[in-house]
Amino acid sequence: MTEFAVWAPAASDRVEVDVDGDRYAMRRGDRGWWRVSVEDAKAGSDYGFSIDGGQVLPDPRSAWQPQGVHGLSRVVDHDAFPWTDQRWRGVHLPSAVLYELHVGTFSEDGTFAGAINHLDHLVELGVTAVELLPVAEFSGSRGWGYDGVDLFAPHSAYGGPEELKRLVDACHHRGLGVVIDVVYNHLGPAGNYLSQFGPYFTDRHTTNWGDAVNFDGAGSDEVRRFVIDNALMWLRDYHADGLRIDAVHAIKDESALHVLEQMGAEVRALAAQVGRPLFLIAESDLNDPRFVRPVLAGGYGLDAAWADEWHHALHAAFTGDTTGYYEDFGSLDLVAKALRQAWVYDGTYSLHRGRTHGRPPTGLSGDRFVVFTQNHDQVGNRATGERTSHLTSEGRLRIAAALLLTSPFVPMLFQGEEWGASTLFQYFTDHEDAELARAVSEGRRREFSSFGWDPADVPDPQDVAAFERSKLDWAELESEPHAGLLAWHRTLLALRRSRPELSSGRRDNTVVGCDDEAAWLVVRRGAVAVVCNLAERTQSVPLIGAGTATVLLASADVELEPRSVTLPSDSVAILSVLA
Amino acid sequence: MTEFAVWAPAASDRVEVDVDGDRYAMRRGDRGWWRVSVEDAKAGSDYGFSIDGGQVLPDPRSAWQPQGVHGLSRVVDHDAFPWTDQRWRGVHLPSAVLYELHVGTFSEDGTFAGAINHLDHLVELGVTAVELLPVAEFSGSRGWGYDGVDLFAPHSAYGGPEELKRLVDACHHRGLGVVIDVVYNHLGPAGNYLSQFGPYFTDRHTTNWGDAVNFDGAGSDEVRRFVIDNALMWLRDYHADGLRIDAVHAIKDESALHVLEQMGAEVRALAAQVGRPLFLIAESDLNDPRFVRPVLAGGYGLDAAWADEWHHALHAAFTGDTTGYYEDFGSLDLVAKALRQAWVYDGTYSLHRGRTHGRPPTGLSGDRFVVFTQNHDQVGNRATGERTSHLTSEGRLRIAAALLLTSPFVPMLFQGEEWGASTLFQYFTDHEDAELARAVSEGRRREFSSFGWDPADVPDPQDVAAFERSKLDWAELESEPHAGLLAWHRTLLALRRSRPELSSGRRDNTVVGCDDEAAWLVVRRGAVAVVCNLAERTQSVPLIGAGTATVLLASADVELEPRSVTLPSDSVAILSVLA
Repeated sequence: MTEFAVWAPAASDRVEVDVDGDRYAMRRGDRGWWRVSVEDAKAGSDYGFSIDGGQVLPDPRSAWQPQGVHGLSRVVDHDAFPWTDQRWRGVHLPSAVLYELHVGTFSEDGTFAGAINHLDHLVELGVTAVELLPVAEFSGSRGWGYDGVDLFAPHSAYGGPEELKRLVDACHHRGLGVVIDVVYNHLGPAGNYLSQFGPYFTDRHTTNWGDAVNFDGAGSDEVRRFVIDNALMWLRDYHADGLRIDAVHAIKDESALHVLEQMGAEVRALAAQVGRPLFLIAESDLNDPRFVRPVLAGGYGLDAAWADEWHHALHAAFTGDTTGYYEDFGSLDLVAKALRQAWVYDGTYSLHRGRTHGRPPTGLSGDRFVVFTQNHDQVGNRATGERTSHLTSEGRLRIAAALLLTSPFVPMLFQGEEWGASTLFQYFTDHEDAELARAVSEGRRREFSSFGWDPADVPDPQDVAAFERSKLDWAELESEPHAGLLAWHRTLLALRRSRPELSSGRRDNTVVGCDDEAAWLVVRRGAVAVVCNLAERTQSVPLIGAGTATVLLASADVELEPRSVTLPSDSVAILSVLA
Repeated sequence: MTEFAVWAPAASDRVEVDVDGDRYAMRRGDRGWWRVSVEDAKAGSDYGFSIDGGQVLPDPRSAWQPQGVHGLSRVVDHDAFPWTDQRWRGVHLPSAVLYELHVGTFSEDGTFAGAINHLDHLVELGVTAVELLPVAEFSGSRGWGYDGVDLFAPHSAYGGPEELKRLVDACHHRGLGVVIDVVYNHLGPAGNYLSQFGPYFTDRHTTNWGDAVNFDGAGSDEVRRFVIDNALMWLRDYHADGLRIDAVHAIKDESALHVLEQMGAEVRALAAQVGRPLFLIAESDLNDPRFVRPVLAGGYGLDAAWADEWHHALHAAFTGDTTGYYEDFGSLDLVAKALRQAWVYDGTYSLHRGRTHGRPPTGLSGDRFVVFTQNHDQVGNRATGERTSHLTSEGRLRIAAALLLTSPFVPMLFQGEEWGASTLFQYFTDHEDAELARAVSEGRRREFSSFGWDPADVPDPQDVAAFERSKLDWAELESEPHAGLLAWHRTLLALRRSRPELSSGRRDNTVVGCDDEAAWLVVRRGAVAVVCNLAERTQSVPLIGAGTATVLLASADVELEPRSVTLPSDSVAILSVLA
């Protein structure tokens, strides 16, 4: 027997559930809920809801969409999975190192099962948790995942619910945590039937994707439950350790209790219940400390926020790219600011935005921020999907990695970054609807035309080749320069683990000195100094405030002098220093 | 010589200032500013700006519009006014009692000067500050003032800048403070030329009035300065003591530093400079403590917020009106909740809103909230503008006044409330544009038709009679029941001043007991008890937790018993009690 329940206040008259071809009338309950128990239904039964006699629609809370976004939902028994991670104790976010991966391109198979084959590589690398790009069911088989529409259903093309559980179990077995990227600011354009059930969306606010999700209008209590229950589901039923919440600036909520604050409180309650840490990470470009401040300090109490500007500052300075939003960056001074406080615009005027932006992250420790030298967006939102390794020298890649992995923030690597993967990461989709497919292809060309691109040079997201080009090539790992870069990252991660001043989120032990003109930069983190020469020539860089030093690690031959180091062009040395 | 400056980033080529008929080219400065000094211009000169050779427009920051919203601006020398309030020490908001007045209807003349004639009445009444409905220049001569378009110019039909200064000076001379109502969420529909100068508005957010004021998009730094400089102007150049900020929920700002927090910080800086308290009061229906929490606790640091729900709870319970948004109210239990914490919906489900609303005002003292038994909106937004005195018995008016003036909140009276004025306060406008006038008249009729009104019974706001009906009738003051009600208010205000437990914002000394069915209510504020009988019959009401009592004030003959009081129907007694 299975109890079916659906929130469908839009139904004026009746709601029926269709289970394996049989139709059952549902009983109207409180506040728009409809319920019925069906004797013959069980895990594996296929079902859908019909509102006022309309077509059978997938369950908004479907746990599985084996036939995709337009198909029937399938009953899943979450209690049936044979978990083996009973001894897993969770991820300590402040000392974590994340690894962002996209299930479809991470492995040759492009599935949850395929990803398991490469987990040992991650353990050897030294990261502590994987962060999966969104896994909720989206239209078609290929996509980044940000256009999910069945938020409770792991993508069928990746293997569905059971395979995701196997992946999480396999991660935990190896001591790796799992973070799942979730999208609560919009739903994808195809297969979104929610409005036929109730007021999931509102025109009170607008976002880049159109009407906002209804977090503060009439009927929003149940929409908030939908989203918060979804967050709790990944953590409870899939044993995820944390969630990365996409683009929180587009989660529009003017109510006195922001839905993210409510979510944070419920996640903390669940953590107490399961007895291990669970965390929420916000993607935000607002440079607003409110998201990660504790509730008592008027914040939403989230655990961490992405700091894209840390990336922007390094990207612009290291590659010389100052187009688009990189126009606000480019100097080493701004890199130094990012290294100290994660985001750069802290109440200062942004030329690109045409206004003052942000406020200082006063009082927040470094582990409240997730930083990266690249990620799926920064790579994939380029017209042709080049990684940083396609845009700058190997020497600078090593410098960037050193700055990332010695920072007081929570570092994140993007799949293949650790070996300077030669493969691209392009924007790809697989929309079945011809009109939508054409709109996506044309939209992409138009977007980049406005930046001066010849439309013919912009890859078509709908072309399967864009997806294929984005798959990692694991064979290249053994060859140079990949093997050397991989070793560099492994060594840096080992160093981060071994030196307590590096793995801590202390910003008070972090001092950055730089000379923009001479193109050098020194980061002191307690008794460790990271000395970078970004000039085209060998030069001597002062060891600001430090006396005796010994080299812990260097990307080239460096020469120690009293109170300075001489480094070749584009190289970095990590030193143990005495004040 | 006068220096003219205008922010006009919309100008592509040139900006000129027309001064008394002569045209002067302005020099382009930084970030969209244009400037020129004109030798012959002085206080009294009439001027306007022409952008790219277009028509001459009033200055967005015009200090005076003697010919109304479409006319030229006039140069004002703020330093020239002969202030006599050098010894004024400002208003202590936590112990203040406010008096809301509309300049156009408060006096027979309907001007700033006319208001001065009735200030002695207010002093004798015992209020400590007047709160002026918006005085910025709006279209036509009659109006509530919420459709102002020249935010820096006191309304010319009220007497312009000099007369407003005279009114403030006269208030201060009598020990009365002055609060000015300011509108930063929209501008009026007629005479709004701001978009010809720059990006004052944005379609990134919407409000009930259309596009939102641009507080967080490109160019918003100067829009924020425009609004904050306006706030500072009233406080500095007009010696106002505080501002009431209209409908802050429609001030849309997603930036990390909310414009209201920025405004609060700048107002505190000005207060330190002028050496007396200055304050900001927000009108908000969000029931969100954030507005009045200190900045250190993640708040915006405003001084107080209106609590409309205090009114709604009393209005519904006392008049039996549970239409519209009053459907969420009606019981004495909710009155009791309002008496304890100002707003009622504190994370509870609101039927009218169809969602959970608000959060508890934990940790906030009572003086963070302004409460009232009526105000311009609650009276004037009724189809025909009836006051509470038109809707309930004199006995209940006395009870409501007693609850208001013994509350831990900052009480506010609405002009004429103190004598139960027989005059209405209707919605009135004076738009000169025929199409706009028709739209306003029809809109009003349509709005109330949807509530079941016969359109013919809805007064036409454009009809001068709506305005005339709304003028106070000072002659009625001497007659009953007006004289008696006035005396009742005077006595209550004297009591509030004389008993420290009443004038304090302490909510921890405030205990409310009630019996909804028996229709009685008791408020304990320290050693004072306010005992109300709202039943149709005489009854004995328990003096919760109190022993010996003496009557301080009563609206009818009451009988003291040990631990209880017997009161006639619709009466109130204020007692001094021993625990």
